[in-house]
Amino acid sequence: MKFKNMADLPIGIFDSGVGGLTVLKEIHARLPAESTIYLGDTARVPYGIRSAETVIKYSLENSSFLVEKGIKLLIIACNTASAVSLDIIRNTFKIPVLGVIDPGAKAAALATKNSRVGVIGTEATIKSGAYGRTIRRINPGISVIERSCPLFVPLVEEGWLDDEVVELIVRRYLTQMKLSNIDTLVLGCTHYPLLKKVIKKVMGDDVVLIDSAIEKAKNVSNILTSSGLLKPLDTPISRKYYVTDAPERFQEIGKRFMLEALDDITKIEIASLEEKAVALKKACGCGGV
Amino acid sequence: MKFKNMADLPIGIFDSGVGGLTVLKEIHARLPAESTIYLGDTARVPYGIRSAETVIKYSLENSSFLVEKGIKLLIIACNTASAVSLDIIRNTFKIPVLGVIDPGAKAAALATKNSRVGVIGTEATIKSGAYGRTIRRINPGISVIERSCPLFVPLVEEGWLDDEVVELIVRRYLTQMKLSNIDTLVLGCTHYPLLKKVIKKVMGDDVVLIDSAIEKAKNVSNILTSSGLLKPLDTPISRKYYVTDAPERFQEIGKRFMLEALDDITKIEIASLEEKAVALKKACGCGGV
Repeated sequence: MKFKNMADLPIGIFDSGVGGLTVLKEIHARLPAESTIYLGDTARVPYGIRSAETVIKYSLENSSFLVEKGIKLLIIACNTASAVSLDIIRNTFKIPVLGVIDPGAKAAALATKNSRVGVIGTEATIKSGAYGRTIRRINPGISVIERSCPLFVPLVEEGWLDDEVVELIVRRYLTQMKLSNIDTLVLGCTHYPLLKKVIKKVMGDDVVLIDSAIEKAKNVSNILTSSGLLKPLDTPISRKYYVTDAPERFQEIGKRFMLEALDDITKIEIASLEEKAVALKKACGCGGV
Repeated sequence: MKFKNMADLPIGIFDSGVGGLTVLKEIHARLPAESTIYLGDTARVPYGIRSAETVIKYSLENSSFLVEKGIKLLIIACNTASAVSLDIIRNTFKIPVLGVIDPGAKAAALATKNSRVGVIGTEATIKSGAYGRTIRRINPGISVIERSCPLFVPLVEEGWLDDEVVELIVRRYLTQMKLSNIDTLVLGCTHYPLLKKVIKKVMGDDVVLIDSAIEKAKNVSNILTSSGLLKPLDTPISRKYYVTDAPERFQEIGKRFMLEALDDITKIEIASLEEKAVALKKACGCGGV
């Protein structure tokens, strides 16, 4: 398929694995005419337990792969990767690059009435302090309480979304958060929206849950509209998936996120990702990690 | 430090992360005079959710790194890596290479009285069927019931080892196993011995638990003794740790496994692992994956 102009190009999205599909699903719902390319780095998932240095390296490699495919906009769907590598990726590529932290932080700052916001995410996201910094930059008067919930991702990947085990675990992580009197809670990891029902039960109806996937998708829609990059409705749509390992597992767990079958999944080699990043670094003398 | 002969060389051990420390701990206990080099591939952990192809690639890279350091014996402490890559690693290197499947399988085959053995492990280990094959090769009359328990590793890494959440999760995974009337259960993942107390409670006192770490350490001791490779007691001991990412996290979680502080941890780059594996492949024309 040949694209005629920038607006026809697909949106590129990467995540450490399947989690970013929550963002993709919202994008498909809001922008059904757009083509998308999704890259899940399943050979190196999860990012949430890794050092910032390693997450930056992996994120640059993923971005290089997608940019080389030809995309009009790059979305870092992974909160961990957004938290530590957004700036460096923005400085490396010419196309617009969006993370998931900013829209989630903005939505939380707008939603809170008592100026007390909670943020939950992976170890790396919470350790980076990115949500807290961004929320306080928007409104320095907001208190931000952050907490990592390392078992949430494995629970979702196992498909345990709503039962007594999930509730016990959610209670253990969030009881202190509940007692700290927040009125807004950011689900700062793409897997967490799948546990929304139990999180809502534990936190109570008075606490607003901010789903970063939904906020992100709104953001993409606004940017494409304002920059005239919305794809014309009469051009063909393509939805491609790339993974670095185990496409069958991606397909199986991915269904839980997309609520539909994923077709057109291609496995690519990590080595080819690394080569692309090195070539890019040489070509532009940038992206130095 | 210069080693004078083969027996003075350290034992090399690799694992996808911290899990293999259960094996290392047993080796230190049984062979306190031996030097050891441990490599934890923390930039790409966990292996249990990856394809066999990817696990083989990572395992060959780890092995190349350790062999190049100078070791007399290589132990694949990771059950997943043992299950899928032992043969190819044995064919690639000249030193003795030991996995964790064989000793665990032998111990189980010896222990069972009713010829019904259970095996629990990661998704990749169970999918490989390596334990079942090995046990049935030893005694074709034994029925083997296998089951993956994907949440056990995250539980141990989170430090939740013995409470109501752990018990609920263990019950959910093992109730069917319990009902299938096994009298022996192989803990086919290096993390699982840390959950032994709860697993024992759920399975009951009549079921013998086989700890692959202990069986492995016995095996190493026997091999070094019979091949005259035991290190002389008067030579200096060194215990080194290498990780591919996040040494602080390794140190912190490692303490849970070793029950002592880990000193001398060095972070190495994944790229250098890959280069070593490529150089080795070129040099010997082997290890083709």
